[in-house]
Amino acid sequence: MGSKQTAEPAAGNGLIDRRVFLAASAAAALPAGAGAGELGVEPWMQTPGAPFSAYGMPSRHESKAARTFTSAPGTTGTGASRTPLHLLDGTITPNGLHFERHHSGIPDIDPDAHRLLIHGLVRRPLVFTLEALARYPMQSRIAFIECAGNSGALYQKEAAAGGAQALHGLVSCAEWTGVPLASLLEEAGVDPRAQWLLAEGADASGMSRSVPLAKAMDDAMIALYQNGERVRPSNGYPLRLLLPGYEGNANVKWLRRIKLVEAPVMTKDETSKYTILQRDGTALQFCFPQETKSVITRPSPGLRLREPGLYEISGLAWSGYGRIAAVEVSADGGASFAPAALQEPVLPKALTRFRIPWRWSGGPAVLQSRASDEAGNVQPPRAKVVADRGPATLYHFNGIASWEVSDQGELRHVYA
Amino acid sequence: MGSKQTAEPAAGNGLIDRRVFLAASAAAALPAGAGAGELGVEPWMQTPGAPFSAYGMPSRHESKAARTFTSAPGTTGTGASRTPLHLLDGTITPNGLHFERHHSGIPDIDPDAHRLLIHGLVRRPLVFTLEALARYPMQSRIAFIECAGNSGALYQKEAAAGGAQALHGLVSCAEWTGVPLASLLEEAGVDPRAQWLLAEGADASGMSRSVPLAKAMDDAMIALYQNGERVRPSNGYPLRLLLPGYEGNANVKWLRRIKLVEAPVMTKDETSKYTILQRDGTALQFCFPQETKSVITRPSPGLRLREPGLYEISGLAWSGYGRIAAVEVSADGGASFAPAALQEPVLPKALTRFRIPWRWSGGPAVLQSRASDEAGNVQPPRAKVVADRGPATLYHFNGIASWEVSDQGELRHVYA
Repeated sequence: MGSKQTAEPAAGNGLIDRRVFLAASAAAALPAGAGAGELGVEPWMQTPGAPFSAYGMPSRHESKAARTFTSAPGTTGTGASRTPLHLLDGTITPNGLHFERHHSGIPDIDPDAHRLLIHGLVRRPLVFTLEALARYPMQSRIAFIECAGNSGALYQKEAAAGGAQALHGLVSCAEWTGVPLASLLEEAGVDPRAQWLLAEGADASGMSRSVPLAKAMDDAMIALYQNGERVRPSNGYPLRLLLPGYEGNANVKWLRRIKLVEAPVMTKDETSKYTILQRDGTALQFCFPQETKSVITRPSPGLRLREPGLYEISGLAWSGYGRIAAVEVSADGGASFAPAALQEPVLPKALTRFRIPWRWSGGPAVLQSRASDEAGNVQPPRAKVVADRGPATLYHFNGIASWEVSDQGELRHVYA
Repeated sequence: MGSKQTAEPAAGNGLIDRRVFLAASAAAALPAGAGAGELGVEPWMQTPGAPFSAYGMPSRHESKAARTFTSAPGTTGTGASRTPLHLLDGTITPNGLHFERHHSGIPDIDPDAHRLLIHGLVRRPLVFTLEALARYPMQSRIAFIECAGNSGALYQKEAAAGGAQALHGLVSCAEWTGVPLASLLEEAGVDPRAQWLLAEGADASGMSRSVPLAKAMDDAMIALYQNGERVRPSNGYPLRLLLPGYEGNANVKWLRRIKLVEAPVMTKDETSKYTILQRDGTALQFCFPQETKSVITRPSPGLRLREPGLYEISGLAWSGYGRIAAVEVSADGGASFAPAALQEPVLPKALTRFRIPWRWSGGPAVLQSRASDEAGNVQPPRAKVVADRGPATLYHFNGIASWEVSDQGELRHVYA
């Protein structure tokens, strides 16, 4: 046990100052004899191990770290798969576990045949092959993508069963590399009348969205690489539109066409879906940035505290408006909060890992996190989001989520 | 074509100012008709695509983005596999393509049975289960790992055939998350006589290295996660030692034991190997930090320039001493250099992506990059490294590498 066990609490019910890192040792280790004889020579040390491979996979012992998915009746590829946030740590989502949302499955695109057309209100329409795009100056950035429907279950009247994956697993984060869209539009020559663009995917649903031209000229990217390798098929291979901070659906995958236009096109994907239906029957449309938000991933349902003592509470925070400025954590259902440590580097429109030590007494606790961003946005209480938006929508839920810890150390989703 | 085609050169043979991003469009796009009819309705748009998956893989069209490997005669798991740097971009290496160096294959470790013992010159020897480690405060950092033998072929008298993967592919970069070793040592209680530690792996070779205690107390980590998910078997599952900036071999995989000692233990892995044999027959031992270095990945052998015109030259730079401060690029074999743009964020002991636009005339060119770091180290010419170290070693080569471009746009490794 560290010598600073007497550290003053930072908030109620066991939260400890985030800077008390060395003192927060879990005292979970067992005393050992002094010799290496303490360790047996395990079977895997007694025979040569497995050979090299061209492309590796996780340990067979980690099969639980998998996406869960549901698809619409009669389909296999219309629906969503969710990232197992409770089994991951850090901020990068490995490509095999990035969440998916498809409207008609994953097309198997021949990269040599794929084209990107830029046309509409431009001086000179252009068609790009992948080989042509590879010659342009590229940029990399780490960015989250979150489905507009993530956490939508928290609009429901009763707290749904499930944990970080089932309720909040439609958010992931990767290092994306590609060509700034602005440089391609500059080459095509933007007509001054153009204010929006239509982005169309090459999947069977022809997924299409209208995007403000200002976003395209700001930080939009034609993404070719995801965590170093080519974008995965489930993320738009061979290329996708990346709109950092914008709702996932607008980051059109399998991108084949950008048409510059004067006004939104009103596609099926921005009228019948991805609009926020309000109490009075009117709907909010083109709500692009994902709001300031956070979720505790450890501990969370599916994990368990086996005995009272020291633990680390850890989770993810993000904002479509820029950098996370602070995350506060509560262990008493919001009665008191203490500031968590933010893992550097804190990048704009990227997942940010937060951590704070906690001494669990063995009694009941309700864990919450509350993020704020550099633009001054603060993650609101759940009740406020429901009151503001009404119960008729699924989209853009960013209220505070709560995990209740039982005296058995089990966790479940509650409203608090 | 951009309007700034007349941008002044930044160095000889076509290098353009790194800030001229919009002007550097490759003019590689084809003029198109004004309508979407330009694009056919491809077969993959005419039928629903593939279903969801629990754990995804790259496109079947990207099978070339694979590790290549060689193993010692009579073995399948003693040798190395190399990252295909020329086919990647950004700075993160996807877990499936992280380089491997094994001394007796990849053990299949049961995580529930695995233990980490800390003993030797400590007040209280401790044994950790994975469940115990999961309770400790964690940290994440993006760090490169480079095999001490990377680029060793460049000590040879004649320039070896091969490109970025074959010659320099024993370096990769990931976001690692785990428990700072200092906090575990603090809990065990370090005896003042302890100056080094022995780190032992649970593979069949019992890979073991001596590491200065000062490094352990500085930034060493017991890494549990790699790019978000559990460390891959080929990278030490269920846990490895991470010593940011130190030669790969010292970052002991499948770590099972740390013993605090007064002096280096002189294991087989730091006497018969991983020492630098000099001209006079003496050897340098315990050369831990990987030196300041860079390599151009695009274009590089295996890729080809199909026609004269604008391209981006891009590559990776790194230093075991801290942050990269600058990378300069030459297109005329070192006669003149221009500064490349560094991709933010530039992190200490992490791969840093550099980029610079280049107009290829269609004539001969020799491409080089030269990195310098915040500690003032500058990547030396190849001849200087060979002169200083002699031809008898394979280790710690960090000289400037050269790719020659033929008038056919083909690239090959040369000494220049």
